[in-house]
Amino acid sequence: MQSDDVLRRLKTVQGHLGGVIRMVEEDAYCIDVIRQIQAIEAALNKVSSRILEDHLNSCVITAIQGNDIKERERVLKEITEVFEMSTKV
Amino acid sequence: MQSDDVLRRLKTVQGHLGGVIRMVEEDAYCIDVIRQIQAIEAALNKVSSRILEDHLNSCVITAIQGNDIKERERVLKEITEVFEMSTKV
Amino acid sequence: MQSDDVLRRLKTVQGHLGGVIRMVEEDAYCIDVIRQIQAIEAALNKVSSRILEDHLNSCVITAIQGNDIKERERVLKEITEVFEMSTKV
Amino acid sequence: MQSDDVLRRLKTVQGHLGGVIRMVEEDAYCIDVIRQIQAIEAALNKVSSRILEDHLNSCVITAIQGNDIKERERVLKEITEVFEMSTKV
Repeated sequence: MQSDDVLRRLKTVQGHLGGVIRMVEEDAYCIDVIRQIQAIEAALNKVSSRILEDHLNSCVITAIQGNDIKERERVLKEITEVFEMSTKV
Repeated sequence: MQSDDVLRRLKTVQGHLGGVIRMVEEDAYCIDVIRQIQAIEAALNKVSSRILEDHLNSCVITAIQGNDIKERERVLKEITEVFEMSTKV
Repeated sequence: MQSDDVLRRLKTVQGHLGGVIRMVEEDAYCIDVIRQIQAIEAALNKVSSRILEDHLNSCVITAIQGNDIKERERVLKEITEVFEMSTKV
Repeated sequence: MQSDDVLRRLKTVQGHLGGVIRMVEEDAYCIDVIRQIQAIEAALNKVSSRILEDHLNSCVITAIQGNDIKERERVLKEITEVFEMSTKV
């Protein structure tokens, strides 16, 4: 994984989430809190896309070029699964 | 594409959508209409997952086992793109 | 419901869906089909938002200004439910 | 806001996110990281729904029963906006 970029993004989300917790503690306006949570979710989606991109360009290529049919099937099945889940969260 | 299953699902969605249009024409309760639209979207998500599954097991395997690096990159980039879009619709 | 605008949008989606079915029948490229399905979902989200907007400005106002506490609770609960579902489809 | 429950949920998410950061630092399997991020998003959706529910049962009722038409319109418009955004993240 190109973990530097992913880590940096996740730590930014961590800071953002800390800010949202303070907003709730200070009794901020509900809708403002919801909007910040939605911004965090958009940032997390971006992180997932980056991780998937790295995964496709490493593990997936290796599995598909390899000789282990079961492993190839497993790797492709996982991609469909995270895609399907991404439409639900 | 295993187009029989995909086609069958899309035609079911088409019938469902016709039903929603009738509901609106007959001035059905707003929330009931929204719920039916959400059911249609869940069905469409399922169709997309099926299409992606078929795509991974055909075009993507061919591209990754082939010698055309540009083509391989293109095919993998598309998957990241539809994944990223799936988090937005 | 401002049903003219909603109906018009739903009929546009119906035409779009017919086009996607033809794409599958003519064995179009998988990723292109997925992108069209995602465009349909974005259009359906827009329709749901319009319906919700109308609902808030009619039934919800009536229920909240009325004297039936049970009815008010029911109407507000439905909004939370469609919001929660909207994050899942 | 019933901020105790919301705060508790957000702090659980904070712990979960810390775990995901450690997974990336320890070079965990990409797909496992994506799945944990999706679980965090599902938890955040639940928090947003809880906040919206509280908002509807407080500010929204007050605004709709009040005499300030502009304020009422503003409050209802915000709900449509967060609903529409919820379909995009």
